[in-house]
Amino acid sequence: MTVRQLSLPELTDACARSGIGHVGLWREPVRAYGVEAAAKLVRDAGLTVTTLCRGGFLTAADPVRRAEALGDNRAAVDEAAALGTDTLVLVCGGLPAGDKDLRGARERVADALAVLAPYAGERGVRLAIEPLHPMYAADRCVVSTLAQALDLAERFPAGQVGVTVDTYHVWWDDQAPAQIARAGAGGRVHAFQLADWTTPLPEGVLNGRGQLGDGAIDLREWKGYVEAAGYTGPIEVELFNERLWARDGREVLAETARRFVEHVMR
Amino acid sequence: MTVRQLSLPELTDACARSGIGHVGLWREPVRAYGVEAAAKLVRDAGLTVTTLCRGGFLTAADPVRRAEALGDNRAAVDEAAALGTDTLVLVCGGLPAGDKDLRGARERVADALAVLAPYAGERGVRLAIEPLHPMYAADRCVVSTLAQALDLAERFPAGQVGVTVDTYHVWWDDQAPAQIARAGAGGRVHAFQLADWTTPLPEGVLNGRGQLGDGAIDLREWKGYVEAAGYTGPIEVELFNERLWARDGREVLAETARRFVEHVMR
Repeated sequence: MTVRQLSLPELTDACARSGIGHVGLWREPVRAYGVEAAAKLVRDAGLTVTTLCRGGFLTAADPVRRAEALGDNRAAVDEAAALGTDTLVLVCGGLPAGDKDLRGARERVADALAVLAPYAGERGVRLAIEPLHPMYAADRCVVSTLAQALDLAERFPAGQVGVTVDTYHVWWDDQAPAQIARAGAGGRVHAFQLADWTTPLPEGVLNGRGQLGDGAIDLREWKGYVEAAGYTGPIEVELFNERLWARDGREVLAETARRFVEHVMR
Repeated sequence: MTVRQLSLPELTDACARSGIGHVGLWREPVRAYGVEAAAKLVRDAGLTVTTLCRGGFLTAADPVRRAEALGDNRAAVDEAAALGTDTLVLVCGGLPAGDKDLRGARERVADALAVLAPYAGERGVRLAIEPLHPMYAADRCVVSTLAQALDLAERFPAGQVGVTVDTYHVWWDDQAPAQIARAGAGGRVHAFQLADWTTPLPEGVLNGRGQLGDGAIDLREWKGYVEAAGYTGPIEVELFNERLWARDGREVLAETARRFVEHVMR
């Protein structure tokens, strides 16, 4: 998503040339290209798919919409398996129109997970609930903190459901370091993503995630938390940013790799 | 602030005509009008000032700026006392430019409170730390949750420092009801403010607070939490909203009063 201006073949080529061996993919471009063809493309480029983004949107109260959402999430699990990744990131969904019951919506997420978790487990795919920043609680994700995500995940085996830690969403939360430790102790840190926090936020607050090093987050500190929790998996950089998307994708990829070394690794 | 298009005399007149006996004031219009003159104006209109907004911005690391902030907050305490309100709302301030240390900034707030709390207490004014929504953590308020606000407040006597509960800032937080109970048990709910949560958020995310009933928040539920915590004080409606500001202020005041009855009282 950081370089969504690149087509899948351009992306895999650019990664291979940059010495980047792992890539997180989004469903839309994968489906547009064809799931099997995309799987072959990344395989042939020597790339490993870290995660597939994203399943979720499990908060509908209407039975028809709930059934549709479950079907779509089963498809997402199948796509993840086909791509050879063991992790499907879940963005759980917001409140239905006119609904003011956050607690009820979170419970509907749990009900949906009870269906999806065993389905995913049978296919070797782990669901990674991603708490989104509280500014998305109404319209995108009723799961706003790692504590809430873990309260949901821990109803299921760790091999089926865990969490995604994304610095953009949790950096403000003084409880998050302890929750990362809790997740690590349970083997539930299933994905780790980086983005920096820059202001002012753009209208709609979706596409203003900061390039690494441009914002308020001490990224190294958060890498330390997940490492201390035993996480040894890949680290994704996921930037939704109109300005980055307007630039040459290969340049943005190279810049992001440099920023990663400078602000995360050193 | 909900009807900032009204001058202070227009506001007090409109409140008196609407049967509204309490009003929360902001420092800027009060200082522009003259503190003593504003105090006389509200007194003569039979109005009680609920709170003065706002002190705070206590996170500067630079000694000169810290001294300036302390001086400004002492002035705010004096203004509150002159207006006859016992409550000064505090917005604690964001990260200094280039700073990534949220914990350090929160500690500087505590250091400043150690100076200001006794000063306020001697003048019969309580400081009411307002946790702001986490989307403001970088640039406006490093105190993002009621739990954080209470961790700060409880270092001081309840008669000196408590919290402001604003639905707009805490509605997403499943820990907030328990924290309201904690605040109530300690006699630290010093102010209660309402705004609804509407999307999409505008650029900069400052001036998009929803009119009561227009958004995702169950306002009655939150009124129930503060009442169960023993709160019997005034309820403020604080809407930062460009669309409301563009309308006739008296109309907005009347609409807000109707919405309050419909969505909060019934």
